[in-house]
Amino acid sequence: MVEIVIAEHAGFCFGVKRAVKLAEESSKKVKEGGRVFTLGPIIHNPQEVNRLKSLGIEPLENKELKPGDTIIIRSHGIPPEKEQELKEKGLNVVDATCPYVKAVHEAVCKLTEEGYFIVLVGEKNHPEVIGTLGYLRACNGKGTVVETLDDLREAFKYEKVGVVAQTTQNEEFFKKVVGELAVWVKELKVINTICNATSLRQEAIRNLAPKVDVVIVIGGKNSGNTRRLYHIAKELNPNTYHIEMEEELKPEWFKNAKRVGITAGASTPDWIIERVINRIKEVCSESLVYC
Amino acid sequence: MVEIVIAEHAGFCFGVKRAVKLAEESSKKVKEGGRVFTLGPIIHNPQEVNRLKSLGIEPLENKELKPGDTIIIRSHGIPPEKEQELKEKGLNVVDATCPYVKAVHEAVCKLTEEGYFIVLVGEKNHPEVIGTLGYLRACNGKGTVVETLDDLREAFKYEKVGVVAQTTQNEEFFKKVVGELAVWVKELKVINTICNATSLRQEAIRNLAPKVDVVIVIGGKNSGNTRRLYHIAKELNPNTYHIEMEEELKPEWFKNAKRVGITAGASTPDWIIERVINRIKEVCSESLVYC
Repeated sequence: MVEIVIAEHAGFCFGVKRAVKLAEESSKKVKEGGRVFTLGPIIHNPQEVNRLKSLGIEPLENKELKPGDTIIIRSHGIPPEKEQELKEKGLNVVDATCPYVKAVHEAVCKLTEEGYFIVLVGEKNHPEVIGTLGYLRACNGKGTVVETLDDLREAFKYEKVGVVAQTTQNEEFFKKVVGELAVWVKELKVINTICNATSLRQEAIRNLAPKVDVVIVIGGKNSGNTRRLYHIAKELNPNTYHIEMEEELKPEWFKNAKRVGITAGASTPDWIIERVINRIKEVCSESLVYC
Repeated sequence: MVEIVIAEHAGFCFGVKRAVKLAEESSKKVKEGGRVFTLGPIIHNPQEVNRLKSLGIEPLENKELKPGDTIIIRSHGIPPEKEQELKEKGLNVVDATCPYVKAVHEAVCKLTEEGYFIVLVGEKNHPEVIGTLGYLRACNGKGTVVETLDDLREAFKYEKVGVVAQTTQNEEFFKKVVGELAVWVKELKVINTICNATSLRQEAIRNLAPKVDVVIVIGGKNSGNTRRLYHIAKELNPNTYHIEMEEELKPEWFKNAKRVGITAGASTPDWIIERVINRIKEVCSESLVYC
């Protein structure tokens, strides 16, 4: 009988749980005929987005907004000028920006006030980063996004550099960036804005991956934090697979497997994790596979 | 014919050149019968210390100081209470503390004022570190010396940590310390006090060591920065040897050598480097060795 071990801290983080709850509450408050939209998919998970659709909460795609509509800012946050625009359109704006992301917005402006050039360690095209850059512009700050060590060149020109991170940033890369800056610039100030949930989730799979025969990482194929979980696990265990849903599981992955480890990205709801577990159990009970 | 390549930035740094010059000037100013002492050997190099002795500049050992004597504080610096003591004894105190070391003294007090717990990356028993800790005490700061990553535990208890380094600190270890702190503490401020001379000297031997057949590192056996040069070179080239004087050179080291690389610690005067070069040339012209 196969043993299935769920890594600690797998799945939804605090900020996403909160955003989903705020969306559900908003849809309950809206009167008959009122509309509730989220500004982009509320999380990187199409299945959870579909579940919310069934509750009347739709991602805003090409739809025209009307005054009185409810619009939910998802946990990633948005630039402040964008939020202002929404309010000026007479919309009911519900801000579900993760409090940890709000802390990054505050940090870049505090560092700007203190005279630092900002290094934001993160992915250039990530909505959270785009939102944070908006706050940096709004407080007249200067800065750059650092995705590779090469991106640091811009920062080396400044004597005072302040560093923050995208909340889902990988700790190892963050350490490297800070280390390099420490020997290049005269004065460095670092505000560690990496969310604990992410590092605990990464740490848990780092511990678990070498101790199991197969690792299944569940989460959106377009989710940065899920991809990072996959890469961490894959390095420690070549039998690592990234799936979004249980249908993608292949029986041959589990041949002779005695222990299967599971983790899931920040946007994966518990009900999907459960479906994957059930499907692995089914697969393993089939006669052709010996797990 | 063997080729001898001297690594860039080998030998005396700015601070040591300045200290030696200040000592020589002081001895010229002193009237007949006046005495000039240095508080400990002015540099980690017994040969240069002997040369200064011949100019009437003696390291203070067990001698009794008398009012009117000149005492030179060497480039490492000393705790401020110790300097005060010397002045109260009626001595003529010449402060040859390296300006880069003075910058560390200022940095720990500035960071203390801003509410940071201090991490001083350096060697616990190094005179420079002992001096800096004196300045930290004098401005009522709290801090710890970090020599190994284990020493960081003390700092992890604090939310705000400020980092400085012994001026001769190895950059790679400094990067690691700063990186670890960046993900542990909430707010980190780093003032890079590593002296450029040290890193340039290290960089130069890192580039040179793999390109030569033998590396000779010249400098006091008790000099921390020389030992680091030795370790950097040894990792890249197993035929690396640490000597203080040309007499220690062994002909067999140079068997079949075509290129010999030379570097020297911050306390090695040029005249010793020249003697080593001449001795290598002699050794290589002897018939039993084929370099």
